Amino acid sequence: MSSEFELIELFQHIGAEYYKENGVIIGPGDDCAIFDLQSPIVTSVDASVADIHFPSDASPEDIGYRAIAVALSDIAAMGCRPIAFSLSVTSPFIDSDWYKRLAIGVEDIANEFKISLIGGDLTKGPLNLNAIVYGTPFSKKILRRDTAQIGDYICISSSVGKAKKGLTDWKKMKRDSIFIKDYLRPLPKIEIGKKIVSYASACIDTSDGLLADLTKLLKASKRGGVINIDDIPITEDIDDINGGDDYDLCFTIPKDKFDNNFFKIGEVTQEEEIKLVSLKGYDVDIKGYEHF
Amino acid sequence: MSSEFELIELFQHIGAEYYKENGVIIGPGDDCAIFDLQSPIVTSVDASVADIHFPSDASPEDIGYRAIAVALSDIAAMGCRPIAFSLSVTSPFIDSDWYKRLAIGVEDIANEFKISLIGGDLTKGPLNLNAIVYGTPFSKKILRRDTAQIGDYICISSSVGKAKKGLTDWKKMKRDSIFIKDYLRPLPKIEIGKKIVSYASACIDTSDGLLADLTKLLKASKRGGVINIDDIPITEDIDDINGGDDYDLCFTIPKDKFDNNFFKIGEVTQEEEIKLVSLKGYDVDIKGYEHF
Repeated sequence: MSSEFELIELFQHIGAEYYKENGVIIGPGDDCAIFDLQSPIVTSVDASVADIHFPSDASPEDIGYRAIAVALSDIAAMGCRPIAFSLSVTSPFIDSDWYKRLAIGVEDIANEFKISLIGGDLTKGPLNLNAIVYGTPFSKKILRRDTAQIGDYICISSSVGKAKKGLTDWKKMKRDSIFIKDYLRPLPKIEIGKKIVSYASACIDTSDGLLADLTKLLKASKRGGVINIDDIPITEDIDDINGGDDYDLCFTIPKDKFDNNFFKIGEVTQEEEIKLVSLKGYDVDIKGYEHF
Repeated sequence: MSSEFELIELFQHIGAEYYKENGVIIGPGDDCAIFDLQSPIVTSVDASVADIHFPSDASPEDIGYRAIAVALSDIAAMGCRPIAFSLSVTSPFIDSDWYKRLAIGVEDIANEFKISLIGGDLTKGPLNLNAIVYGTPFSKKILRRDTAQIGDYICISSSVGKAKKGLTDWKKMKRDSIFIKDYLRPLPKIEIGKKIVSYASACIDTSDGLLADLTKLLKASKRGGVINIDDIPITEDIDDINGGDDYDLCFTIPKDKFDNNFFKIGEVTQEEEIKLVSLKGYDVDIKGYEHF
């Protein structure tokens, strides 16, 4: 068995080469990390619990990657640039090999987004990861979910249900399914956030299901919407529109800013209710995934 | 059983009255919180796991208070002012009463330090809390642990072992012990950090035991020390110097800055080794508490 301090050393160097560009003055190793960017900071925390957020038979590399990725998705939803993250790991494993593999997955995503690990905690107990992410605006504007405007188009950037299919295939032991990557290694849509930040009026990431998350956005904006169910690109079946874990962005934009890189799925309305419309005869309810 | 969203509402308002002074632009409810202080940010995360960091029969109020307090102690060690915190709770409880009581303890400490809750996560699973804290310098200087200077006095601000005795008394069911508060509701030494920040050369909080944490400070500073064991104020017995959970500050100061508000327990030396000296004949080793 390794000591806490030996295991911490597996993680301490991750993203150290990006300290300067991320404004990190002190990384892990002191009581706190320090960063100084002289600009607003956006931050979020996401828990990943075994058999709730990920299958406990997933590889340590994927568990580490995914824990950070789902948190970075919140930075994407704000239209911001990620700069740093902390990782608190509670784990029952005593074998240092598990931690080495976890660190590989964490390092993968740190390098992919050029972000720095700035702290964390390591404790013994039932498997539970908490990723804390920090970001800053690309220029000045930060997207929020409570600012959708009447008449705006409601858009998403890719088809729904890929992660849902990935998880189903994983459980069915179809380990060569191309969708498993969508579930275990979701791509935080930082680039899409960067693209839309200047003209989108509101944005949210789709972690709990498209309709559930869109409902949150409209409710926060004190607006309603007409959703054209037939226009939502799906992966397998219509239940995909309530499937969680896609980590796509759902956003509203003024009509004249719409381009065909995105899927228009509805419009923002004044009345605080959501109308689901389908000429194909789909009869769906809004359901969301609760991790509780 | 309550929904995740109903339970989140128990926490969302905590510290909202301090948003302005803490630079909080968006609190909980969006994908990220935003703060903007145009100054450096210090941040840390601390996990609190049942029966490792706190007894599982502690009250929900104390569990909530303690989870934040131990994290704030890291802000104190940097000589900084706490501004905000996030709380990620994984819990097996389905009764909303448990969460209401947890929120009371969290609100207690938020009001005590005038800090704002800016986010969190709520998940089902074995009891596990992660508190993320954010702070900023009182003026400009931030304390660190790797900057102790040769010849500096090594100081602590109160006697060691109070929390250790509190935990022992709790386990012995001596519930009227005055030391239980030291264990379950430790006071983060923000005021002491504020007092010493301008002249201390290095600082660390004593979470894992005085000698273990002092060793970390000296090692980080690439220095050694002579520690006068007889000068360390203890609560019960000499083992207190290795007892964890005190959350006091241990710091180094230039000789001419020493005053009698603190206990001088040793001096920083050039050689990278730690000498324990006792004329009373105490023969102690340096042991630390590992939460792993």
